[in-house]
Amino acid sequence: MSQVNCAIIGFGYWGPNLVRNFAAAADCHVHTVADLSPERLAAATRLYPGLHTSTDIDAVIHDTAIDCVVIATPVFTHFDLAKKALNAGKHVLLEKPMTDTVAHAEELIELAIRHGKTLMVDHTFLYTPSVRKIKALIEEGSIGKFKYFDSTRINLGLIQQDVNVLWDLAPHDISILDFLEPTLPISVNATGVSHIHNGIENIAYLSVNYQHDFMAHFNCSWSSPLKIRMMLVGGDHKMVVFNDMEPTEKIKIYDTAHSVRTPEEKQRILVDYRVGDVYIPKLEGGEALAGMAKDFIQSIMTGKEPVASYRSGLNTVKILEAAQHSIKQQGKEIKL
Amino acid sequence: MSQVNCAIIGFGYWGPNLVRNFAAAADCHVHTVADLSPERLAAATRLYPGLHTSTDIDAVIHDTAIDCVVIATPVFTHFDLAKKALNAGKHVLLEKPMTDTVAHAEELIELAIRHGKTLMVDHTFLYTPSVRKIKALIEEGSIGKFKYFDSTRINLGLIQQDVNVLWDLAPHDISILDFLEPTLPISVNATGVSHIHNGIENIAYLSVNYQHDFMAHFNCSWSSPLKIRMMLVGGDHKMVVFNDMEPTEKIKIYDTAHSVRTPEEKQRILVDYRVGDVYIPKLEGGEALAGMAKDFIQSIMTGKEPVASYRSGLNTVKILEAAQHSIKQQGKEIKL
Amino acid sequence: MSQVNCAIIGFGYWGPNLVRNFAAAADCHVHTVADLSPERLAAATRLYPGLHTSTDIDAVIHDTAIDCVVIATPVFTHFDLAKKALNAGKHVLLEKPMTDTVAHAEELIELAIRHGKTLMVDHTFLYTPSVRKIKALIEEGSIGKFKYFDSTRINLGLIQQDVNVLWDLAPHDISILDFLEPTLPISVNATGVSHIHNGIENIAYLSVNYQHDFMAHFNCSWSSPLKIRMMLVGGDHKMVVFNDMEPTEKIKIYDTAHSVRTPEEKQRILVDYRVGDVYIPKLEGGEALAGMAKDFIQSIMTGKEPVASYRSGLNTVKILEAAQHSIKQQGKEIKL
Amino acid sequence: MSQVNCAIIGFGYWGPNLVRNFAAAADCHVHTVADLSPERLAAATRLYPGLHTSTDIDAVIHDTAIDCVVIATPVFTHFDLAKKALNAGKHVLLEKPMTDTVAHAEELIELAIRHGKTLMVDHTFLYTPSVRKIKALIEEGSIGKFKYFDSTRINLGLIQQDVNVLWDLAPHDISILDFLEPTLPISVNATGVSHIHNGIENIAYLSVNYQHDFMAHFNCSWSSPLKIRMMLVGGDHKMVVFNDMEPTEKIKIYDTAHSVRTPEEKQRILVDYRVGDVYIPKLEGGEALAGMAKDFIQSIMTGKEPVASYRSGLNTVKILEAAQHSIKQQGKEIKL
Repeated sequence: MSQVNCAIIGFGYWGPNLVRNFAAAADCHVHTVADLSPERLAAATRLYPGLHTSTDIDAVIHDTAIDCVVIATPVFTHFDLAKKALNAGKHVLLEKPMTDTVAHAEELIELAIRHGKTLMVDHTFLYTPSVRKIKALIEEGSIGKFKYFDSTRINLGLIQQDVNVLWDLAPHDISILDFLEPTLPISVNATGVSHIHNGIENIAYLSVNYQHDFMAHFNCSWSSPLKIRMMLVGGDHKMVVFNDMEPTEKIKIYDTAHSVRTPEEKQRILVDYRVGDVYIPKLEGGEALAGMAKDFIQSIMTGKEPVASYRSGLNTVKILEAAQHSIKQQGKEIKL
Repeated sequence: MSQVNCAIIGFGYWGPNLVRNFAAAADCHVHTVADLSPERLAAATRLYPGLHTSTDIDAVIHDTAIDCVVIATPVFTHFDLAKKALNAGKHVLLEKPMTDTVAHAEELIELAIRHGKTLMVDHTFLYTPSVRKIKALIEEGSIGKFKYFDSTRINLGLIQQDVNVLWDLAPHDISILDFLEPTLPISVNATGVSHIHNGIENIAYLSVNYQHDFMAHFNCSWSSPLKIRMMLVGGDHKMVVFNDMEPTEKIKIYDTAHSVRTPEEKQRILVDYRVGDVYIPKLEGGEALAGMAKDFIQSIMTGKEPVASYRSGLNTVKILEAAQHSIKQQGKEIKL
Repeated sequence: MSQVNCAIIGFGYWGPNLVRNFAAAADCHVHTVADLSPERLAAATRLYPGLHTSTDIDAVIHDTAIDCVVIATPVFTHFDLAKKALNAGKHVLLEKPMTDTVAHAEELIELAIRHGKTLMVDHTFLYTPSVRKIKALIEEGSIGKFKYFDSTRINLGLIQQDVNVLWDLAPHDISILDFLEPTLPISVNATGVSHIHNGIENIAYLSVNYQHDFMAHFNCSWSSPLKIRMMLVGGDHKMVVFNDMEPTEKIKIYDTAHSVRTPEEKQRILVDYRVGDVYIPKLEGGEALAGMAKDFIQSIMTGKEPVASYRSGLNTVKILEAAQHSIKQQGKEIKL
Repeated sequence: MSQVNCAIIGFGYWGPNLVRNFAAAADCHVHTVADLSPERLAAATRLYPGLHTSTDIDAVIHDTAIDCVVIATPVFTHFDLAKKALNAGKHVLLEKPMTDTVAHAEELIELAIRHGKTLMVDHTFLYTPSVRKIKALIEEGSIGKFKYFDSTRINLGLIQQDVNVLWDLAPHDISILDFLEPTLPISVNATGVSHIHNGIENIAYLSVNYQHDFMAHFNCSWSSPLKIRMMLVGGDHKMVVFNDMEPTEKIKIYDTAHSVRTPEEKQRILVDYRVGDVYIPKLEGGEALAGMAKDFIQSIMTGKEPVASYRSGLNTVKILEAAQHSIKQQGKEIKL
C-alpha cells in the first residue's frame, strides 16, 4: 500500500484538528469526511474546499476505496461504528475514550485481531514531548523507583449530560499513567458529587491501587474557577512536575534524593527529603496530533503496534468503568 | 480573675510561638514553661530571660498558682496531660489535633463540662484573615449555595513515624471545613500509600461526604516537590480560591454564576459556568496565633465558647479517625 | 459604496492575519493579495483557494477595481508604496510603524488630506479589550490623575538588521501611550546597546517627557531569556497592571489611594501609598485585528477618523525618530 | 586582638538586624548601642536585656574600649560620624549608601588608609547566595561574555523627603553590578519624575555606560502596585534571571547560545537566540547579614580587604551622584 485512504467520521469539536493533521500526514489521503449534520459538512468544505463529504456514514464505512476510518463521534456510538468498520475490513482509530464499556472494547479488540487490522485510540498526550520526556526519564532510571502519580485536571466547563467528568477528562491522565507505569493496577476507589441532580458527577476523585507501594490519584472537575493541568510524577530520586498550563516550561525535574539523618534525629523521623537543583529541559516542538496520525498510518502500513494501542484504550476504559461502579457504591474498592 | 496565669507544656517546634503570643496577650501572664528536656528549657530562657521553667510537668499541672495549661506536646500525650490538668481544675488548650482518638476527645469534653473549664484546640487557621473572609462570604450569602470544598496541602516533608500525613497536615483543612460548613458529614473515604513500609502513609487522599449534594476532598502529601497550600471553596454564584503561598493576594473571589443556555444548546449540555470578574480583597493584618491566644484567655474569663472549641476539635478527630479506618479497609466508606 | 475592494500587499509574517480578518470583515472583499515572492503567493492560495494574487505590485496599486490598499511590507518601503497608492486615489492602511521618518509620515498625511482618503496605521493594540478597558478607566476618572506609564516588552528574538529594537517592539507601547495620554510629550531620552557591532541596538531604553509631572518609560529587548509584556499605568487613586502574558487575567486594577500620615510620621515621610483591594475585570472577547479591519472599512465608507489614525501613526514615528537621535547622541534630550 | 568590641550607632529600621547579627558573630562583642532616641534604646533593651546603651554618640565614638563602629543612621550623617570614628582610631562599617557625596566618600577612604583601619559598607546583597552564585557563573565563564545587566526594583513605598528613589533603592543593584562587572563604567544617563513637587524623584531610570559593548540599566520606583525585584544578567552563552521575590527558586539559568542561521535567513537576520534548557541551582542557606558581619570582623582582625570594601561603596556613590546630576540636566550623559 503506497497511500492510505482515510475517512473521518464526525466533524464536531475535534474533527477539524483530525482533518488538518491527517491531510498533512505522509502517505495519507483524506478521502471523505462524514457527519450526520449537513451544516458541519458545509463548515468542513469552507475550511477545505474540494473535500469530499457525506452524510451517509454506512456507505462511507463500506466504501471499498477507503482503507481506514477515524471515528470522532460521541463515545456511546464508538462501538457500533467501529464494529461495522472492522467487519468491513477497515483499520480503525477511535477518539478517547475507546468505548463506553469494557465489554465493547474487548469485542472490538477481538474483531481487530481476527481481521488483522489496526485498532488504535487517539490518546494524543502519549505523543506530546512532555509525556515522552517523562517516559524517557523513567525508562533511563533517572527518577529512580516510580512511587506515585498525582494528576489534577480541573476547570470551569460545560456540564455534560451523557458522561461524568471522569469519562470526559480523566482518559488523558489515565492513558498517561498506563503509558508510564509498566505494571497493571489491581483496583480503584472513586468518589464524586453531582450538582445537577441527574447523577452525572461534575467533580470526581479517583484512586488507582497497585500490588506494590505505588499509587495514582486523579482530581477531575468541571466546577473549578482555576484551570489546572498538573501532574506530579514521583520517583525516589527525582520528581517531575508536568504543568501543561505553562507555555514553555512544562516539565520541571526536581532532585529530591533521600537524605539519611543521624541516629539521634532518626528517633523522631525515618526519612527526610531535600529539594536540590531543578532542571527544566528544552522539549522538542511539533504537534502531538501529527505524531498520533503518523503512528496510525505507519501501523496500517507496517503492522507495527502503535503507541496508543488498543491495550492502552482497554486499560483506560477498565479504570473508568470500575471508577463509575465505585462512585455508585460509595467509594468501595472495585477490583480490576 | 484579673489576670490568667498560664503554663505552657512543650517547648519544641511550636512552643516558642505560643510563648511569644501568650506573653503579648492582654490579661495573661506566662507563669511557667515546662518541658522534659533541659536543653529546650535553656533555649527558652535564652529567648526570654527571667522566664520560669520546669522539667516536672506534673508539679506544673498541679501548681495552684496556675489557671490554665497550654499543651504543645506530641499528640499521643495529649489525653493524659489534658485529663490531669482538667482534673486539677485547669483550663486547657491543646495543640491540633486535639487527641489521638475520638474516645479520648469525648472523655476530655465530658471532664471539661463537669469541671466547668474551657477546653479548646489550637486550630490557628480559624483565626486567619483569609478563613475569616471566606466565612463571611458564605454567611452573607455572596457565594450562593456552598457546593464543594477541595484542599491540597502538599510539600516535601519529614516522614514521621507516629502519625500519618493526614493526622499531620489535614487538621488545618478539616477544621476550616468544619468552621465553614454548618452541617455535619455522614461518612468518609480515604486512600493512601506508605513508601517506607511502616504502615504510616506519606501520601493520602480523603473524601468527606454529606447528606446533601456537598462534598469535601483533601490531598495531603509529604512527598511533593512543590509546596502547595490551595483551597477551592465553591458556591453556585461565586467560587473562592485560597492560595496560602501567595504573600499578599491569598484570597481570590471568582464570579462564576450559572449561565442558562438556549434550548438547542441544552440538548447537549445542562449547565454552563462562566468566569466573570475576579476580586482580590484587602485582608486585615495581624497574627492568627495572637487571635487564638486572646480567644482562649477571653473564654477563661467570660465563659464564652471559643471559635476553636472542643466541638471543632472533636469533629476534626472524628474525621481523622474514620479516615484511618477507611485507608486500612481499602477506601471503604466509614460512617461517622 | 456598498462594498470595499481591498488589496493586501505583502504576505509575510503578518499578511495571513490581515487576509483572514479582511476576508471576514463586513462590506469588504479581498480583491487581490500581492507579494514579490511567488512562493508567498502560493502559500496564500493554499490557505485561500480562489484568491486572486499578483507579483506586479504597481499594477495592483493602479487597478481601478481596488478601493483600498493594506501595506504589510518592510517599513522602509512604506512611504513609496503608500504615496503611489494615495496618488492613485486609494485609501491606505499601513503596518506599524507608519514610516521610517517623520518627514515621510507628514508627506503621506498631506497627500491623504489633499485626496480626501483614509490613511491609517495598524496599531492593533488600540483595538484590544485590555487597552480599551484602561482607556475607559482613565476617561471615567477612576484611576485619578494619570501619573506615569512604564512598559517592558522583552524577549529572546531575532536580531534584525534594518531597524533597532525600538522600531521593532516599541510602536505597540508608544501607540498605547499616545492613545491613553491626551497631551503630547515635549522630549525624549534614549540609551541602548548593540551587541552585534552593526549599530543596530538589540536592547534600548526610552524615556518620554511631558510638560507636567507625567513620565513614560519603555524597556525593549531582543536579548531577554524571559518573555515579558507588562505595562504599569499609574494614577493617583488606582494603578493598572496590564500583563499580556496572562491568558485571562490581563488587567489588574489596584486600589492605591494615598494615605495621609500623622504629623509626627510626616517628619520623615511625605506621602504613603497602601495597596487595597485588587479587581480583575472580565474583558470582552473578540480579535483585535477584526476591530482594526472594521474601523478601516468604516472610515472609508463614512469618512470618520479611525482610532488608529495617521495622528497616532505620526506621533509614534516622532518619538521613534527622536529616540534614535538620542541614542546616537549618548542619551541627550531630544525635543519633539 | 582576640575579640572585637563593637558599637552600633542607630537603632532604627535596620539597627535590630545589625545587633542580632553582630551579637551572633564569632570574635565579636556588641559593647554599646547608641541612638539619640531614648525610646529606641528602650526598644533595644526590651529585645536584648543587659545590653549597654547610650544617647551620647560622641562619647561612644571616643570610648577606648570600643574597636569598631557600625553606623546605621541617615545617609547625610554618615560622613561626620565616620570621620570622627576613623580619627578616633576605630574601624568603621557604614550602612548603604556609603555617603551622600563622592567627595565625602573619598575623604573617608583617605582617612581609613592613613589610620590603617577597615572602612566597609553594608552592601548586604554581596553576601547573598544568589549574587555569589551569579558571580561564580561569570568567573567560571559559563555565561560567556557578560553583555548586559538589567535591574528592576519597584514597589509601593514611602516617599522619602531627603533622598530620591535611586539613593534609596539602587545602591543594592549598583553594588551588585560593581561586584559582577570587572571594568568601571564611563558615564551615566538618568531620568525621573517627582509626583510630590519637592524635587525628590519617586520614579527614576538609570543607564550606566561602559567603554565596551556592555550596558546596565536600573528601574526604581516607590509608586508601583507590584513589588518586583528582578535582575537579568546576560551573557552570550547563558542568561541568568535573579527573581528575589521567589521564595526558593531565586536564580534561573537559561541556556541561550547563539544559533547561526542559513545564509538565506541571514539576509534578514544576523543573530538568532534560542532558549534551551533551564537550570535552577540549589542555593546555600544562611543569612547574608551574618556573612557581612563576619567579613567586617575578619577584616579588622586580619587586615584583609572585605568584599563590600570602600571601593564598592565609592563606586556606588559615584554612580548615584552622577545620576542625580543627569536627572537634573534632563538625562544628559554625565562622565564618571
